[in-house]
Amino acid sequence: MTEPQWDGLIVGAHLATLDAAQGYGAIEDGALGWRDGRIEYAGPRAGLPGPPERLAREVIETDGWITPGLVDCHTHLVFAGDRAREFELRLQGATYEEIARAGGGIASTVRATREASDDELIRQSLPRAQALVASGVTTLEIKSGYGLDFDNERKMLRVARRLGEQLGVTVRTTYLAAHALPPEFAGNADGYIDAAIDWLPRLHAEGLVDAVDAFCEGIGFSPEQTRRMFEAARALGLPVKLHADQLSDLGGGALAAAFDGLSADHVEHTSLDSVRAMAERGTVAVLLPGAFHVLRETKLPPLEAFREHGVAMAVATDCNPGTSPLLSMRQAMQLASTHFKLTPEEALRGATVHAARALGLGDRGVLRVGARADFVHWAVRHPSELCYWLGGHLAHRVFASGRQVA
Amino acid sequence: MTEPQWDGLIVGAHLATLDAAQGYGAIEDGALGWRDGRIEYAGPRAGLPGPPERLAREVIETDGWITPGLVDCHTHLVFAGDRAREFELRLQGATYEEIARAGGGIASTVRATREASDDELIRQSLPRAQALVASGVTTLEIKSGYGLDFDNERKMLRVARRLGEQLGVTVRTTYLAAHALPPEFAGNADGYIDAAIDWLPRLHAEGLVDAVDAFCEGIGFSPEQTRRMFEAARALGLPVKLHADQLSDLGGGALAAAFDGLSADHVEHTSLDSVRAMAERGTVAVLLPGAFHVLRETKLPPLEAFREHGVAMAVATDCNPGTSPLLSMRQAMQLASTHFKLTPEEALRGATVHAARALGLGDRGVLRVGARADFVHWAVRHPSELCYWLGGHLAHRVFASGRQVA
Ligand SMILES: [Zn+2]
Ligand SMILES: [Zn+2]
Repeated sequence: MTEPQWDGLIVGAHLATLDAAQGYGAIEDGALGWRDGRIEYAGPRAGLPGPPERLAREVIETDGWITPGLVDCHTHLVFAGDRAREFELRLQGATYEEIARAGGGIASTVRATREASDDELIRQSLPRAQALVASGVTTLEIKSGYGLDFDNERKMLRVARRLGEQLGVTVRTTYLAAHALPPEFAGNADGYIDAAIDWLPRLHAEGLVDAVDAFCEGIGFSPEQTRRMFEAARALGLPVKLHADQLSDLGGGALAAAFDGLSADHVEHTSLDSVRAMAERGTVAVLLPGAFHVLRETKLPPLEAFREHGVAMAVATDCNPGTSPLLSMRQAMQLASTHFKLTPEEALRGATVHAARALGLGDRGVLRVGARADFVHWAVRHPSELCYWLGGHLAHRVFASGRQVA
Repeated sequence: MTEPQWDGLIVGAHLATLDAAQGYGAIEDGALGWRDGRIEYAGPRAGLPGPPERLAREVIETDGWITPGLVDCHTHLVFAGDRAREFELRLQGATYEEIARAGGGIASTVRATREASDDELIRQSLPRAQALVASGVTTLEIKSGYGLDFDNERKMLRVARRLGEQLGVTVRTTYLAAHALPPEFAGNADGYIDAAIDWLPRLHAEGLVDAVDAFCEGIGFSPEQTRRMFEAARALGLPVKLHADQLSDLGGGALAAAFDGLSADHVEHTSLDSVRAMAERGTVAVLLPGAFHVLRETKLPPLEAFREHGVAMAVATDCNPGTSPLLSMRQAMQLASTHFKLTPEEALRGATVHAARALGLGDRGVLRVGARADFVHWAVRHPSELCYWLGGHLAHRVFASGRQVA
């Protein structure tokens, strides 16, 4: 009699494998086995190659549903301070100008983030990352963009890496120096982009950068400045993604696609030409319903065009202190259903396999032999409940690389 | 040297007492002491009548903020089954008629609730109540209205009482037989109201009823039927509240006020005449942003008129399987800020002192000597964060009647 070979095995829950072009890829009365951080078995319990206790050192007999671990592919969760007071002032009737004059807005987050030490940034950001993990997240993108100088962008990226290590989940870092213009470069956006391009190879050499992003918008950086940033990324072999067409159509979707971008994010105002370009290059549309909700926007992304042209849609929290203080991927899915009318299946795909694609990760987001053993065991009767309940705590167990992280 | 007299004392956190007509009633570096379930001290730490360890058997030194315990004054959380599949079908494009033909809608909840035993109803409802408590709720209203016959309305109210005992929080029961027409009475709403009026004194005699409610709407019961129900309540000395003016103006606000109603709930279409009547009689306007959100409504309640005329506004989850699967009072507050532009202070008052009034409870909802020791210790830097963050877990400790319940 041989020793059990697998590290763990869950039996009795249903699986939503998403391992099919359509539908949940549901397997009733399923079994999921893993070893060395990879899935060894994902199928019906009846198809297991032996009795559970012979197969795995730890066996969990349960019910509910298992889905792939959620992937939050767009966050700004490393920052210091918060903007709750500003939120309150706005609801009391203060204008954006009044708030800016009172020292609010993104400048206040940049100031607080610059002043914070690494440890202080960890202390403030860790509960946010923990909240996301508790909501089912096993892979997390974190952007820089509140440092806006070499040392502080570096600090943010370093802190992002440390968060991943502390939590035992995957953190993908994105260099977003082209987020806002720091006071040192007021009136000189081109000069700032030059500087940000200069910092990139040094940060990349330290292993701190997985992708490059920019805020391409009338109130952000121009398409031409974005293009220069992207060319610098391409020179280093780094993939790009873009804050595109949130408030107006600057052709951001097409610009991201032209650089074989992993994703174009927000995309409320994206044109049909951009949709076609994204479809052609496989650029994912990342929907951010949290910001849409908080800003009380009404212009919907071109959802039908994305569907018709086969552009994959992902969903993310956009966790940030100004426009999306959103600490739950499930709530992001709920908001995507309410505001964008995504079906629960589209929202789940958007939070798993499509979100993994938006990070360039092909080894996760589905339950399949060989994939990373990132999965969530949910206390639900049907996967549609993940979008249905607002609030509450449905993620019963969260595993990343075969280890329980929540 | 005498023994400490208080059961517990928290020092170092700030207090939002709400014990003032305006503002948070903030006390920086505060202290809160309690004994036998009542608050003995709520003020600055510096004003304590002695050293903490001399005053209380248990002393907690901490930071963050303490608010009164949240009061969820409108829920339908006792039910069996869920309607997540129906939610999914709707997002896939099914019409209400198609869903009704497929056995969905409120009829499916009535069927499932009738079939469930007391224990099964507890088993399914308890996690929802626990989620609300974890979000900071220490007093909870639960309505009947999915039984729609004597035995099953009775079962729902009995289960509601048991939930309160199990969780150690206050549950107030509301008799809502006039929620929908059961199949046995199809075409005979007047006959059903006669029956529901007949059941009421028997349920009241068993101590199962704290208030009486009705769904007064074109698709519900008429003002005249509602009036008959309310007269039966008045004959028993029971207070009333009303599902009023959600989809159309039937004068529900004024009708509730005419019976000195505790509250008129939903009130999106409430007229200025009704607002005036509510102000005169002290009837609270209960805002239910969860249903507004899920149904993607656009007609706002007359918020400015409520403010001008001094109608107290409460906020509640309306937790129910059809239109508001909302399991967090904090999310209800967030949605009230986003959709109804309530300030964080208005939302907090609406979730505490005003909600207590909507249940006829004058002994809670503020931090004040003599009030019930129902309070929440929040991991926040400012109370506006309670409305600001979407998701996440901010309620660090929840106390009901001086005992920790979450
Ligand atoms: Zn963003
Ligand atoms: Zn209701």
